[in-house]
Amino acid sequence: MTHRQLNLNAFIYPTGHHEASWRHRDSTPERIYDVRYFQELARAAEAAKLDAVFFADGPALRTEVRYRPDYGLEPITTLVAMATVTTHLGLIATASTTYYEPYNLARLFSSLDHISTGRAGWNIVTTASDAAAANFGLTDHPDVQQRYARAREFVDATVKLWDSWEDDAVVADKAAGVYADPDKIHRVDVEGEYVSVRGPFNSARSPQGRPVLVQAGSSNDGRDFAAHYAEAIFTAHQRISDAQTFYTDIKSRAADAGRNPGHVKILPGLSPFLGATEAEARELQQEFNELTIVEYGLGQLQKMGRIDVSGLDLDTRVPPELFAGAGDITDNDNSRRLVFAKIVEREQPTLRRLLHKLAGARGHNVVAGTPVQVADIIEEWFTRGAADGFNIMPPQYPQGLEAFTTTVVPILQERGLFRTEYTGTTLRDHYGLPRPESQYARTLATAGTA
Amino acid sequence: MTHRQLNLNAFIYPTGHHEASWRHRDSTPERIYDVRYFQELARAAEAAKLDAVFFADGPALRTEVRYRPDYGLEPITTLVAMATVTTHLGLIATASTTYYEPYNLARLFSSLDHISTGRAGWNIVTTASDAAAANFGLTDHPDVQQRYARAREFVDATVKLWDSWEDDAVVADKAAGVYADPDKIHRVDVEGEYVSVRGPFNSARSPQGRPVLVQAGSSNDGRDFAAHYAEAIFTAHQRISDAQTFYTDIKSRAADAGRNPGHVKILPGLSPFLGATEAEARELQQEFNELTIVEYGLGQLQKMGRIDVSGLDLDTRVPPELFAGAGDITDNDNSRRLVFAKIVEREQPTLRRLLHKLAGARGHNVVAGTPVQVADIIEEWFTRGAADGFNIMPPQYPQGLEAFTTTVVPILQERGLFRTEYTGTTLRDHYGLPRPESQYARTLATAGTA
Repeated sequence: MTHRQLNLNAFIYPTGHHEASWRHRDSTPERIYDVRYFQELARAAEAAKLDAVFFADGPALRTEVRYRPDYGLEPITTLVAMATVTTHLGLIATASTTYYEPYNLARLFSSLDHISTGRAGWNIVTTASDAAAANFGLTDHPDVQQRYARAREFVDATVKLWDSWEDDAVVADKAAGVYADPDKIHRVDVEGEYVSVRGPFNSARSPQGRPVLVQAGSSNDGRDFAAHYAEAIFTAHQRISDAQTFYTDIKSRAADAGRNPGHVKILPGLSPFLGATEAEARELQQEFNELTIVEYGLGQLQKMGRIDVSGLDLDTRVPPELFAGAGDITDNDNSRRLVFAKIVEREQPTLRRLLHKLAGARGHNVVAGTPVQVADIIEEWFTRGAADGFNIMPPQYPQGLEAFTTTVVPILQERGLFRTEYTGTTLRDHYGLPRPESQYARTLATAGTA
Repeated sequence: MTHRQLNLNAFIYPTGHHEASWRHRDSTPERIYDVRYFQELARAAEAAKLDAVFFADGPALRTEVRYRPDYGLEPITTLVAMATVTTHLGLIATASTTYYEPYNLARLFSSLDHISTGRAGWNIVTTASDAAAANFGLTDHPDVQQRYARAREFVDATVKLWDSWEDDAVVADKAAGVYADPDKIHRVDVEGEYVSVRGPFNSARSPQGRPVLVQAGSSNDGRDFAAHYAEAIFTAHQRISDAQTFYTDIKSRAADAGRNPGHVKILPGLSPFLGATEAEARELQQEFNELTIVEYGLGQLQKMGRIDVSGLDLDTRVPPELFAGAGDITDNDNSRRLVFAKIVEREQPTLRRLLHKLAGARGHNVVAGTPVQVADIIEEWFTRGAADGFNIMPPQYPQGLEAFTTTVVPILQERGLFRTEYTGTTLRDHYGLPRPESQYARTLATAGTA
């Protein structure tokens, strides 16, 4: 077995993760509805041998578009277009179990996996958003227990649909006139409280058997769900100590659930400003921070941090009392609030400084440094039990991705921490995950030996 | 204004519309999960200047896969992949209003329209299928009135979402820090009996404003729906007289609904077997018919025709009494039964002959002849008020598409009935349909003059 290596995804946000990236003189916000732009990003990520590209998503307008572009294109369709110009790059889309139906979503991801010959991943979210709820006839979003109860049934149903056709169900015997063996195509017969699906699925099993299951929950419900289902976990930590605590907790929960902890990849977000010197990197960060719009930042702080800072002067220190109760992470809704609370407690920033701190990546870890400094941070987190890799969140696309892949990736490769060539063709191959057998094949094998 | 010309779509069925096409020696059923196969079909259709490719769909296994492949890939994702290798070809996917949610489906089609720069079409179906119902927690499918009541609300909501961002909502003024004008992004506030959506949409208005709305209902409810909403109608007729009656009815219903009947294109299905002589074409058809599997044909007759022929000898005439009551087309479910009944009444076929008759295209018009004969039929239907064009259903893909585009299309072009070059870039351009203004832009303009 080869030694342990990093997994690196490019987390796509159209003009970049820094909230003011679209205002930068080099930015091309007019291209965010041009699929060729995303195809260029895909080619660049693949040229650097990254594991995957990743899109967030939610069924509602997610940002104050007065001040900043939202995602424009739907992620699964965009990833199909990116698949057609690449051969190895993994393709991960976010989709909500609360606002989709398993049969429809199972088909989209199965199709993405077929079209990309085995490169699809699904980032499972439960969408704690009243705006999303209102787009589906609800007055507010279901509570966290209900959302995760539905998510469990939803994922079980989806996996059963993906398993519905055994790998050898298609016979295609022209002479005998048998296209498929009906004994190898199974109903799924899910009858849950939230989800009922009879099946069978209407598509052959996809190249990966099952697209890779990704998750990003940090609440207790979220961690429990992740430990049972997720094969990769996206998470937000500012400091290595917090990341280590999270890493240890998830790996042990996975082991408790009877899983191989090595098959749960933990990938924190990392947003790097890069410069030839540290001072140059900080100047670049400052250049972006000066483009921020205060009203937007205050809105984000209120929305994600759930605090009201109206009346507070920009140059006053943020009172930590505003975050009272943030330690209680019973709900994902609250997990980013906790990240913000820790920053305030630790750094005692002015309101302006806090806004700048969050402008880069909404609470994810933003670093400014030389390529060697950034590579050192990555290596430290990787070797000290804080991460299996990273979700790279360039402040600006495509420039920030190019800076990372051309300056940091070669250092990581030189240190033997990152691949120099793909050794497999599927996302499962890149993440070192086994290809699961169909659960129906197992059932029959068991029956056969009884 | 140029003279009236044909609209020609290629209706895709993976190995071809003849039910035994996959068994033919030239068939490649192993390629139906290979997206490059569909990309090749798209390139061939575009080289022949066809208006569009079209995929049927439904959220359930739709055919007896023991005897024949079903569609494998999901159509919208497949069309994205086909979009990336073409520049003009229209891309039409079927999707169900009964088993989708408007916000999710509006996004997929909007994204397809953005990615293809204005070539998306949505074939709206209501899915009369118990198998589909069982995949969404229902014991049987809702009745036709309920399905169409939901469809009307669904389409209204979807169109409102597509209109939600006015065409000039995106400002992208870097200096002023204004990405979009919130006054030009509208909530949709649909609160119906079946569908509730608040909005706003999370994507800018797509190149066509609204993807083209296509429909295939032949029942009274279906025709009424089509007259109000559809910009193209797919329909099945064996004889020009039936097609003329349908054509006249739809155009007059559209006029009654206050629409321009020229903006409702009527496109019957046509499945051509082509040969250098008529005898050669008939031999080709016979070759395919000899590959049919009786059990499959009987199952289809039972499922689509709703008759029980068990016990009937293959060489006995089918008693017309079996189709009693088929003239009553209150439900789409029944419309194909009516087509079958008319064949039996008119041709008095044996059961074997009826099975062969239906094997080509499930009740659509199958013709066998020389390129000139097929072109003559097309011209006759087109000039005598039976069709604005056709949904071409090649018995076999890719061979049957190639035969049609290389032998029949040139004749139609020579006669001035079909374009020799695309004159526009969008599907609306090809169909001669206007690009609709956002309904919210209209509201404001009216308000402004009050």
